[in-house]
Amino acid sequence: MPTTSLEGLVAVGGRPLTPKGRATRQRIVETASRLMLEVGVERATIDDIQRVAGVNTSQLYHYFADKNALILAVIDHQTQTVIDLHRVSLERVEGFDGLVAWRDMIVDVLRAQQCIGGCPIGSLASDLVETNLDARRALQASFSSWEGLLRDGLSTMQDRGILPSDLDIGRAALALLAAVQGGLLLSQTRRDTVALEAVLDNAIDYLRSLSPSR
Amino acid sequence: MPTTSLEGLVAVGGRPLTPKGRATRQRIVETASRLMLEVGVERATIDDIQRVAGVNTSQLYHYFADKNALILAVIDHQTQTVIDLHRVSLERVEGFDGLVAWRDMIVDVLRAQQCIGGCPIGSLASDLVETNLDARRALQASFSSWEGLLRDGLSTMQDRGILPSDLDIGRAALALLAAVQGGLLLSQTRRDTVALEAVLDNAIDYLRSLSPSR
Repeated sequence: MPTTSLEGLVAVGGRPLTPKGRATRQRIVETASRLMLEVGVERATIDDIQRVAGVNTSQLYHYFADKNALILAVIDHQTQTVIDLHRVSLERVEGFDGLVAWRDMIVDVLRAQQCIGGCPIGSLASDLVETNLDARRALQASFSSWEGLLRDGLSTMQDRGILPSDLDIGRAALALLAAVQGGLLLSQTRRDTVALEAVLDNAIDYLRSLSPSR
Repeated sequence: MPTTSLEGLVAVGGRPLTPKGRATRQRIVETASRLMLEVGVERATIDDIQRVAGVNTSQLYHYFADKNALILAVIDHQTQTVIDLHRVSLERVEGFDGLVAWRDMIVDVLRAQQCIGGCPIGSLASDLVETNLDARRALQASFSSWEGLLRDGLSTMQDRGILPSDLDIGRAALALLAAVQGGLLLSQTRRDTVALEAVLDNAIDYLRSLSPSR
């Protein structure tokens, strides 16, 4: 189930939002998320976001004090989307079949979007970490949550004796997440899924090479 | 030895550049490369680039018809820098020691820059591939050249019987490049080299697990 961010429930000044207010806020965040992914954070202007979301300036500033607040809401939104997607897949991981199903899910999603757009979190990271400290901290937390899901999946495999008991699960999860990020960026640039498939297949086969039960 | 791009030898209108002209052009490209890496392509304005490079508007437009031409020169410059760096390391690869030395070189470079800035080519790719078709094509070529160096290194290992003769070298090179990209992005965001080290170590250990001679 999607986690609801507390931040989404109040306007600037701390007033609680009505259901209609929440829907408007959500529409602004979803529009900003899409535009920032499509053209980049800097090129997605407040004017464009207002126009596409169909809200006026005072409405937008009712929910977000400035563009930075909107950027943080976008990071929150994209993190929830990615985490919800990967949680469904990673919660089912009990062995290599589950890990391969997770890999297939990522490749299928990329193929469905014709390799356009890359990773919503990775794109924001590349765009923001050098210029926006709040964003960097938020994106560090996003990657940590994602890595946590991977760690849980690998932990289950370790508990079942499918991965060696002395494997550093945290490091293995971080390496898998890096493989996802690099595969998505190369595949986005090349406009084919081969790079993503190659790096994920090798990362999973590496874990398979460690398996005591193979 | 660094490759000289032909593009660097003429001004807008096709006139050949004098040595002084080449130096001015080079200073503009290096300044633009640094600013675009530090703040992003869109935030690095022509005004900022002129000011930091110490040139006026007519000088800049003498060498570059528009910002797009400058962006393509930046891609060219960053590609040469990365390729020259990796060529030195990858030309020496004859076995796993050489591959590990290449991995150490990448980690050392990242550590020296305190994990700031990420990969010059990866950052440009994430920034430009959705909005600039010329840039996407140039970045596809950049990644291909880089992948070619990796392929040559792996090929040498294959010829020496250190990697299996039926290994798909192109796919393995692409997976290694994806590992570099993902490791650099995660390490840039986290501000530590652990992710880069983890994904490269696992990628190399995967190849080691295939080695007929182990």
